[in-house]
Amino acid sequence: MLYALTQVQFQKMLKNLAAILDKAAVHAEAKKFDVAVLLNARLAPDQFPLIRQVQIACDSAKLGVARLIGDVENAPKHDDSETTLPQLQQRITETLAYLASVSEAQFEGAAERHISQPRWEGKYLSGSEFAIEHAIPNVYFHITTAYAILRHNGVDVGKKDYLGPLPYKL
Amino acid sequence: MLYALTQVQFQKMLKNLAAILDKAAVHAEAKKFDVAVLLNARLAPDQFPLIRQVQIACDSAKLGVARLIGDVENAPKHDDSETTLPQLQQRITETLAYLASVSEAQFEGAAERHISQPRWEGKYLSGSEFAIEHAIPNVYFHITTAYAILRHNGVDVGKKDYLGPLPYKL
Repeated sequence: MLYALTQVQFQKMLKNLAAILDKAAVHAEAKKFDVAVLLNARLAPDQFPLIRQVQIACDSAKLGVARLIGDVENAPKHDDSETTLPQLQQRITETLAYLASVSEAQFEGAAERHISQPRWEGKYLSGSEFAIEHAIPNVYFHITTAYAILRHNGVDVGKKDYLGPLPYKL
Repeated sequence: MLYALTQVQFQKMLKNLAAILDKAAVHAEAKKFDVAVLLNARLAPDQFPLIRQVQIACDSAKLGVARLIGDVENAPKHDDSETTLPQLQQRITETLAYLASVSEAQFEGAAERHISQPRWEGKYLSGSEFAIEHAIPNVYFHITTAYAILRHNGVDVGKKDYLGPLPYKL
């Protein structure tokens, strides 16, 4: 299930985020202001602005999957230099391409893998703990915060943009 | 894994939310304003205020689990009448009690269960689709939005308050 929760669902959420950012561009154009104003908007003076929220959402998804499958060294590197909306969309596109390149077979043993990060000073979580208590909450946090920044600034986004289409069956 | 993702993790997240709301009360007292100002704060004129974000976070968790285990009729009813912080905390407490009452055995078959809601007009999702694409993203959305409303209003909350403690091992 970790594959469905991360490789699959993170792609869906990043595509939703890309569509939300497109709505920000449409809004800025309609109101005749530079979309960079939105990219640099934040909800509090000491909180990251929209650009950084998108960058961290991408990294939480990319590194979440890469750590689960033990593939951090092969994940694409990003130096957080994006300043424009096309650059941010490219960041999302590259993250999506990496996630799409990962197969379900690579998740074998992921739930039990010992996962660490430099800042954890040698401590680790199991793969399932890492996914459930760290990677998944982080991806949703940064996508929701990006959404909230745009919502606060008048962009016409709603819950359906965040959740994306659901695979209803009759 | 649906048990760990929902019954267990939703309890953790609602406890984190309760602690974040306590920080809001401390902030209001220090700044000498009524915490009700924060409870009624929102990020956009047509977005739900903090009270409603907390109510929906509770319901997304409660009904997410109840639907997965086919127990909606036994889940506690709430009529969304909370107006004060103690009432909201009570709502969280009752939601936590319901989640804690659910056993892992009750999740047997949950991934394949057909899950519907009145507004879906007879359509359904499988239990795993419902959990991964609806319940989990919704719980994180409303908790993050509650957090964002408080962060925007100067309450001293950070990512650690949102994620809660992690079960690091050496």
